[in-house]
Amino acid sequence: MATIKDIANKLGVSISTVSKGLNGASDISPQLRQTVLDTAVEMGYITKKMKKEENKKLCVFIENMDFDSSNQFGYDLVLGFRQAAFRDNWDVTVLPITPAFQQQEKYDTFMLKKGYSGAFLLGFTLSDAWMSQLTNTNIPTVLLDNFISKNPSVAYIGTDSFEGIDDAIDHLVNLKHTRIAFLNGSLHSMITERRQQAFYSSMNAHQLTVDDALIANGCYAADSAKDFLPAFLQHGATAVICGSDLIAYGVIRECEKLSVRVPDDLSVIGFDDLPLSAHMNPPLTTIKQDRIELGKCGYMALHSLMNQVPVSRTLLRPHFIVRNSTAFPKK
Amino acid sequence: MATIKDIANKLGVSISTVSKGLNGASDISPQLRQTVLDTAVEMGYITKKMKKEENKKLCVFIENMDFDSSNQFGYDLVLGFRQAAFRDNWDVTVLPITPAFQQQEKYDTFMLKKGYSGAFLLGFTLSDAWMSQLTNTNIPTVLLDNFISKNPSVAYIGTDSFEGIDDAIDHLVNLKHTRIAFLNGSLHSMITERRQQAFYSSMNAHQLTVDDALIANGCYAADSAKDFLPAFLQHGATAVICGSDLIAYGVIRECEKLSVRVPDDLSVIGFDDLPLSAHMNPPLTTIKQDRIELGKCGYMALHSLMNQVPVSRTLLRPHFIVRNSTAFPKK
Repeated sequence: MATIKDIANKLGVSISTVSKGLNGASDISPQLRQTVLDTAVEMGYITKKMKKEENKKLCVFIENMDFDSSNQFGYDLVLGFRQAAFRDNWDVTVLPITPAFQQQEKYDTFMLKKGYSGAFLLGFTLSDAWMSQLTNTNIPTVLLDNFISKNPSVAYIGTDSFEGIDDAIDHLVNLKHTRIAFLNGSLHSMITERRQQAFYSSMNAHQLTVDDALIANGCYAADSAKDFLPAFLQHGATAVICGSDLIAYGVIRECEKLSVRVPDDLSVIGFDDLPLSAHMNPPLTTIKQDRIELGKCGYMALHSLMNQVPVSRTLLRPHFIVRNSTAFPKK
Repeated sequence: MATIKDIANKLGVSISTVSKGLNGASDISPQLRQTVLDTAVEMGYITKKMKKEENKKLCVFIENMDFDSSNQFGYDLVLGFRQAAFRDNWDVTVLPITPAFQQQEKYDTFMLKKGYSGAFLLGFTLSDAWMSQLTNTNIPTVLLDNFISKNPSVAYIGTDSFEGIDDAIDHLVNLKHTRIAFLNGSLHSMITERRQQAFYSSMNAHQLTVDDALIANGCYAADSAKDFLPAFLQHGATAVICGSDLIAYGVIRECEKLSVRVPDDLSVIGFDDLPLSAHMNPPLTTIKQDRIELGKCGYMALHSLMNQVPVSRTLLRPHFIVRNSTAFPKK
């Protein structure tokens, strides 16, 4: 591991300058401080602060995900993570983050500067700047629903999409549906790709043909529905599996406008089991992700990485929850 | 959850008979005891013993795997599991098991009779009787290298075969090999199938053609080599990736007999990194599985299941270890 002296030698500056840069002293320029930090990160330097028991700090970075109220997807994830980390006396900071911030500040540099020993990243997409930097980080980092290959400092946790989608298709096939549509979430997301693969694989295993006119990528929001639902109905869909409960909510609302009855004319299945889903009209059949447990798993994986156990991925089983938005097709 | 009374009602016997059966009293027949136990299992009955703090017993079942000495594959797996379980005050029993025993005694019945709260299964194959029973068990069970779909009481742990095989092919491609053979382990094993898929997928990603004459399934033992090596050489192989270090050891020994130089005429890569592999002649380049950590992960997954966290799978990263059995092809 690099020492302060190594960094000083590499930059051709004094040890005290490096030390000032690492500690954020006021008498060196911000530019020089940045150079010191970037070099420290590049050389794999770990501050004493990061190792000290009395300064145990972790960070949860959140992008593209609401987490303020218990109705929202991120709330239980953060709560579960905090709960598990609390037992080991970690101080957890939760930071919403933007693509612009990632352009401006390197991941490793930010972690080093703030003295975080590890992080849990929620809602990042494949095109985020930090995602590409994670290939080389040596800071313990856990991603929800994103995988970085071959870096033993980074782990992936998530819910098993294959089992979730397969449960949904099982359920629909038992109800005699054959024209099953799939309104997936945004492109450029690993989890969207996995669920698409899962849909093809399970339809195939159930000896059903996938009709490309019945597959679409919207985004993870309610208003995805209006752009795709009319075409699905026109092509004879009797059931639609959605990439999230929010999308399913949009589908049900759109059905109301079009006077399409749910579930009689169209069965609708969500993904997530948000708290609101039991109270939709009709109550939503959905693939539940246990977000408290996912949050706890996120901490467990981070704990493993911080103890040099190179966990690569941990998946939880989904629970399939049958409510009233699915039925035998009436047409 | 079923009570003793439910079991008595179902069987049409007295509560005290059920109680005697569950506790192994001497004054009921072995046949009746078996019926009581089988029914209790079927109805999801959990004994007080299984829940009591003072009677915390786990079992490691081992098949097709040596574990008595530190040279052997299973030794560190058991050690890692014991180490992690010890911290939580579990008493761990290690039981070698045969296919015949599995035919004679049901898994759930055996667990219930012995009062084990959970188990870690090592070395089982897809054709084992207990494997098919695990689809329906509600006893927390962790499998090394085997996956049971859709049962939230069962988890799978292992090493990421895709990254391991991809590291090996990366290494060989950097050494300018193109005629790469794969001597895999026994059929009817999930891990053999995964590694085969990994081989095809990585060869494809490296734009190399897979020649079926350069792929074979032996068994996970040294004497696999003699049946397949001559044909590999005849078809122009300059490198061979093996499904285990033992297979690689057999390949190197066979090369000696055939006056084929390793690595000059043939590069050889193993899988596992057994302690003996650093001392082979030449020392073996191999894909290391950290077995102590795998054993610990096995316990962590079991701990999760026993706390109703439905972990589905946990994979560890492999470490690629370069020694002297691989080089640029000299021919």
